[in-house]
Amino acid sequence: MSQLNVRFLPHDRTLSVPKGESLIRAAMAAGVHVNASCGGEGVCGKCRVLIEEGQVADGISERLSRADIEKGYRLACLSTLTGDTTVRIPVESSIDTTALARQYTPRRTAKIQITDINSLKEQGLFIAPVVKTCLELPPPTAQDNLPDVSRLIRALKQEGDWHRLELTLPVIRSLPRILRENNFKVTATLVKAVRKSGITRIIHIQPGDTTAANYAVAMDIGTTTIFGQLMHLETGECLSERGDFNGQISYGEDVISRIMYAEKPGGLEKLQEVVVASINKILARMISQAKVDRENISTITLAGNTTMTQLLLGIDPRYIRRAPYVPASTHYPPFIASSIGIDLDEHATALLFPEISSYVGGDIVAGVMGSGMYRSEELVLFLDIGTNAEIVIGNKDWLACTACSAGPAFEGGGVEFGMRAAQGAIEDFSIDSVTFEPMIVTVGNVRPKGICGSGLITMIAVMFESGLIDNRGKFNRSLGTKRVRDNNGIWEYVIAWADETQIGRDIALTEPDIDNLIRAKGAIYSGCMTLLEEVGLSVDMIERIILAGGFGSYIDLEKAMTIGLLPETDPDRVTYIGNGSLMGARMSSLTNKIRQDVIEVTKRMTNFELSETPSYMNNYVAAMFIPHTEIEKFPRLKERMNRKNK
Amino acid sequence: MSQLNVRFLPHDRTLSVPKGESLIRAAMAAGVHVNASCGGEGVCGKCRVLIEEGQVADGISERLSRADIEKGYRLACLSTLTGDTTVRIPVESSIDTTALARQYTPRRTAKIQITDINSLKEQGLFIAPVVKTCLELPPPTAQDNLPDVSRLIRALKQEGDWHRLELTLPVIRSLPRILRENNFKVTATLVKAVRKSGITRIIHIQPGDTTAANYAVAMDIGTTTIFGQLMHLETGECLSERGDFNGQISYGEDVISRIMYAEKPGGLEKLQEVVVASINKILARMISQAKVDRENISTITLAGNTTMTQLLLGIDPRYIRRAPYVPASTHYPPFIASSIGIDLDEHATALLFPEISSYVGGDIVAGVMGSGMYRSEELVLFLDIGTNAEIVIGNKDWLACTACSAGPAFEGGGVEFGMRAAQGAIEDFSIDSVTFEPMIVTVGNVRPKGICGSGLITMIAVMFESGLIDNRGKFNRSLGTKRVRDNNGIWEYVIAWADETQIGRDIALTEPDIDNLIRAKGAIYSGCMTLLEEVGLSVDMIERIILAGGFGSYIDLEKAMTIGLLPETDPDRVTYIGNGSLMGARMSSLTNKIRQDVIEVTKRMTNFELSETPSYMNNYVAAMFIPHTEIEKFPRLKERMNRKNK
Repeated sequence: MSQLNVRFLPHDRTLSVPKGESLIRAAMAAGVHVNASCGGEGVCGKCRVLIEEGQVADGISERLSRADIEKGYRLACLSTLTGDTTVRIPVESSIDTTALARQYTPRRTAKIQITDINSLKEQGLFIAPVVKTCLELPPPTAQDNLPDVSRLIRALKQEGDWHRLELTLPVIRSLPRILRENNFKVTATLVKAVRKSGITRIIHIQPGDTTAANYAVAMDIGTTTIFGQLMHLETGECLSERGDFNGQISYGEDVISRIMYAEKPGGLEKLQEVVVASINKILARMISQAKVDRENISTITLAGNTTMTQLLLGIDPRYIRRAPYVPASTHYPPFIASSIGIDLDEHATALLFPEISSYVGGDIVAGVMGSGMYRSEELVLFLDIGTNAEIVIGNKDWLACTACSAGPAFEGGGVEFGMRAAQGAIEDFSIDSVTFEPMIVTVGNVRPKGICGSGLITMIAVMFESGLIDNRGKFNRSLGTKRVRDNNGIWEYVIAWADETQIGRDIALTEPDIDNLIRAKGAIYSGCMTLLEEVGLSVDMIERIILAGGFGSYIDLEKAMTIGLLPETDPDRVTYIGNGSLMGARMSSLTNKIRQDVIEVTKRMTNFELSETPSYMNNYVAAMFIPHTEIEKFPRLKERMNRKNK
Repeated sequence: MSQLNVRFLPHDRTLSVPKGESLIRAAMAAGVHVNASCGGEGVCGKCRVLIEEGQVADGISERLSRADIEKGYRLACLSTLTGDTTVRIPVESSIDTTALARQYTPRRTAKIQITDINSLKEQGLFIAPVVKTCLELPPPTAQDNLPDVSRLIRALKQEGDWHRLELTLPVIRSLPRILRENNFKVTATLVKAVRKSGITRIIHIQPGDTTAANYAVAMDIGTTTIFGQLMHLETGECLSERGDFNGQISYGEDVISRIMYAEKPGGLEKLQEVVVASINKILARMISQAKVDRENISTITLAGNTTMTQLLLGIDPRYIRRAPYVPASTHYPPFIASSIGIDLDEHATALLFPEISSYVGGDIVAGVMGSGMYRSEELVLFLDIGTNAEIVIGNKDWLACTACSAGPAFEGGGVEFGMRAAQGAIEDFSIDSVTFEPMIVTVGNVRPKGICGSGLITMIAVMFESGLIDNRGKFNRSLGTKRVRDNNGIWEYVIAWADETQIGRDIALTEPDIDNLIRAKGAIYSGCMTLLEEVGLSVDMIERIILAGGFGSYIDLEKAMTIGLLPETDPDRVTYIGNGSLMGARMSSLTNKIRQDVIEVTKRMTNFELSETPSYMNNYVAAMFIPHTEIEKFPRLKERMNRKNK
C-alpha cells in the first residue's frame, strides 16, 4: 500500500500513513486530539477539521454548513486520505490549548512478522515433509519380473536418496491397476519421516504426472475461531485462507464450559462432531476457493490448545479442569485425517502440534515454533493474551513457560460495556487533558456500542496519564467534568452519551471495570515476573517481546506498557506474529525441520505452575497498580509522569 | 506313546511300533505282505494271521471259524497290538514262498520336527514381540502432574529397557478413565519394533493386572484349508488349534480358478469376504475352546501363498496368472486386523509373512523360517508338494527357490480312481511278488473308494520294484495275473474288485494314471535338479531334505525315492515339518527374532523362474522315467534292482 503524509496544525505534527486511511484514525495515531464521540459515524459532528492543503475524499455531512464545506471544512471521521494533506484542527474541535506543550506518544502497534518459504529455504530449514515424484517405470518382462511394489521402490531409489520406503495397504491395493492403466507412468506421494533414520511412507499413487498439484492444509483450532490455510507444498504459497467460528461455541464460550459440556452424556461425542464439522466447512471453502482437487491434499497440520486438541480427538478432557490439571497426553501420533471425520482422502495424514501442559497447548508450541523464538540468540518473552494468557520466556538454549488466567476482561467480559472487537466496539481512545472530553474510534466507524479489550487498555492508559484516574484505578473526583460521576455509588466516566450511541444508553467505564482490567493485566505481568524469577532473570533482561493471538494485533504497545500489561521496552523490540498457532501449523506443514525441532523444543520447555510458585501471589499483589507498585520498572513512563508533574 | 515289539513269522522280522497300532499297518511297515483288499474293514477275510505269542485286541470276525479263533487266528486288519506279540502269516495269507529271500524295505516316513518355545529360549531366539506389563503408577499430584501418557511412559522406562515408546490414539483415548478407575494400576500391552532401533507401540491398556492373559494367533491360509493356533505368548503353549476348509473353495479349487473368479465383477470382494469369514470361524472356535478373552489376543500372524495373501488383503491378483507373473508386492506393512474384517479387537495387529514371487509365497517363506533351514550349516532341500510344488535349496549363507506345477495328481486329480486322502482312500499298498495279489490299507480302515496321492506313489514304487511295470510305467503284459488287463485299449491293474469296494466298481490303476504321476514327480525332481545346477551344485551334495505340507507327512520316503520324486538319500536325513506355513507363523508370533531374520532371508532368497531356465526342459524329459533315465542317481535302488535280477 502506498504511503502519504498528513500534517496536523497547529501541532505541526506530520505522520506517514497508508493511502485510504481515515483522517480521524490518522489523527489518533499522531496523538492529535479531535473531539469525537460517535465512533466515526459522522453523527456527532464534533470532529470538524479544515483541510488546508491537498484533498480528502468524502468528509461531507449535513452537520457541516454549505459555507464551511466551501471553506474546506470536513468531518475527520468521514474523510479518507487520498494524497499528502495538511489539516488544521480548529480550536472548537480540539479545545486543547496546551496541545503544543504536551508530549503525546503516537500509537504504536507491533511490527508484523511474516514467514515465507523463501526465508526458510535461505536458512536451509526447508525439508518438505510431503513430496510428489513422477516415475516412468519399465514394464515388467520375463527377465525383470519384480513385484509392482519392488519396481516402484527400485525406481524411487534410482531417482533419489530414498531409503526405508514403505507402502500403505491402500496404495498396494491400487498399484497394479494404476500402473497398467497408465503405461507405468505414475506419481507417488511420499511422506518423509521426521527422523532422518525413519521410514518414508508412500501414501498415494496417482496416474500420470500430478506433481504440480501437491497441497497441504494448516489449521488453528481456537476455542472461539478456527482458521485454515491451504498451501502449495512446493512453493509454500498460500492458495486460500478461511476462518469461521468454532461450532462448539454454542456449547460454551470458554474451555472450562466446553469441558463441563463434554462431561455430560454424549457431550464429548457432540463436541468432537461439531468441531470436525467446522473444520470440514472451512476445508470445503478453501478447496473451492483455491480450485484444487481434494485428492491432492496429502497432509493437514492442526494446532490447538490442550482442551481443543483433546476434544478434536475425542479424548475426555475432564481432568484438565481438575487439580492437579493433568492432560491425557502432550504428544499425539500422526493419524489418518479421515479416521476422526476430517473430510480429506483416505491417504491424507493429520499431525497435531504437541503440548506442554493442560494450559500451555499446541497453539503456544506452534507459536514458539512459528515465531522462531526457539532459535533466537536474544532473550524473548512470548505472550499470547486471551482469557488465558500463555507466557513463554527463553531463547535457543532454554525455554520456560506458564499460563495464567487473565479472566475475560480483554475479551470484554466482566466490564459493564465490554464487548468483543466487533462493529461498534470502541477500539481507540484519547482524552483532552484540559476538558477531559473523549475522542473515540470504533470498529467499523459506526456509533459506539461498547468497549473492546484494546480499547480498554488504551482508555485506562490515557486516563492514567491524563490524571483522570490514579495508580489504583480510582477516578479523580475533583476534575469538574460531568463525565466523571457517581452512578448509584459506583464512580464512572461517560465515554459517550446515550444519544451518540447505538444502544441508547450512556456508555461509561466504571471503577469496577478498571479494577477487572488491573487484575487481568496484573495476572499476566506477575506471571512474566514470576517466570523470570524462577529462571533467575529480571525483566530488564528481556530483549524482544513477541505477541501472538488475535488480541495482540490490536493493542497499542505504549498503552499496554503504560498500564503495566507488558514490561516496558523499546516498541521496536516488539513483534506481532498474529495467529501464532496458524503460523506454526503452516510452517510445520511446509518443512520437516519444524517437526524435527518441535520434539526437542517440547523436551526443553519447562512448565511452571503459577499456583505452585509461592512468589506468584506477591508479584500479583505488586502488579495490582498502574503500572505497578514499583514505577522504577517503567522508567520511560516515570519520566513522562515527572515531566508532566513539573 | 509307549512302543511294543511285533515279530512276524516266518519272515522273522521284528518291528517296534506304538501301542495300539493295527496289526495290518504294522505288517505293512515291516514289509510283510498279507493279502488284503478290503482296505482293513474285515470284509474280505483274506488277512487271517496266527497270534503265536502275546495278545492282540479284537481281530475276531465271523469270517473266522470258532476253531480258528480258539487256535489263535485273527484278522490282521481288525487286530490292535496291545503288547509284544509274535505273529505268523499263514501261507494262504501270504502266498509268498520267496518272502524270506526278498529284501523288503520297511516303510519309512520322515521324522517330525517340532519346535517349542523352550528350544527357542535355549537358542537365545526368544524375543517376545508382544509383552504385557503391569504398572502401579503414582497418582498425579500438584508437584508431579505429568500428563497421563508421560506418566505411563516414565513408569515403563523405570521398569524396563524401553525407549521410543509411542501410544496409539485409541489407547490415549482410554487412558485417563482406565487409570483413574483402577487406582492407577493398569496393564500395558507393548508391541516391540522388529528393528531394535524402532518404535515400541503401546497398543492396549487394561485395568488391573492382566499379564497372565497374553495371547497370539498364528494362521496358515491355504488354498484348500486354513489352520489356526492360539498360543500363550509367554509360555509359547498352544492352547487350541483348529482347521477348516477355506470357504473360497466354493469359488474354485485352485489358485488359478480363484484368480479367475476374482476377475469377475464383485469377485475379489466376495473372495476376500469369504476367506475372512473362514478365519473368523476358526478364531471363534479356538477362542471358545481355549476359553480365553478375545480382548487378550493382541496379534495375529498369517502365512499364505501369494494369491491367498492378495485375496485376503483385497488386492487384485490378476497379474499373478499372466506372464510375466508379477505379484502386487512381496512385503506388506503390519495392519490392524479388524481393518480387513478379522474379528479381533481394535488394537490387535496383523502381520503377513512376506513372499518371494507369484509362486513362492508366504507359506513357503514361513516354512523356511519355521524349519530353521535358513540357519542350517548343512545344504538343505526344502520341498512343499501340492498342485504346485515349491522348492528351496540352500543353507545359512544362501537360498535359492523356485516353483513348478506338479499338476493335481498328488491330490488325486487326473487319476481315474484318484481322490483326496479321505475315508476309503487307499494310502498304503504292497504286492505279492509271485501272485501279484495286492495288500491295501485305506484311510479309516474302510472298504476302498479310490487312491490318494501317497497311495499312488507307493503303488507305483511297489509295482516298479516287483516288475509289474517297467521304467516307462507300462504294465508287463505277460505276468499271467487277471488283475493286469486291457480295458478298452487301456492297460490297468485291478486293485480291488467291485464287490470289495464301496463304489461297486473295480478300482484300477491305469497306464495314463501312472503317466500322470510320472509327469508330476518328473516336474518336481527336474525342478530340484535345475535349481541345483543353477547354483552350481549336484544332487548328491544335499545333506538334508525337509518336507512341508500336508502331503509330505503321508508319503513313504523310500517309495518316493524309488519313483524318483525325491533324490535318493538316507531317510534319516529327511525331516517332515508338517504344516510349515503354520509352524513359521507360530514361531513368528512368539519371537521377534523370526520377524527380524525374515527380512534378511527374503533378501537373500534368489527366485528362479523355471520357464526362463533353458535346462529345465532337458531335466524334465530325463525325469520322465522311473526313477530317471540315469539310474546312477539312485544307487541304492540300482543295487536292489541288480540283486533282484541276479
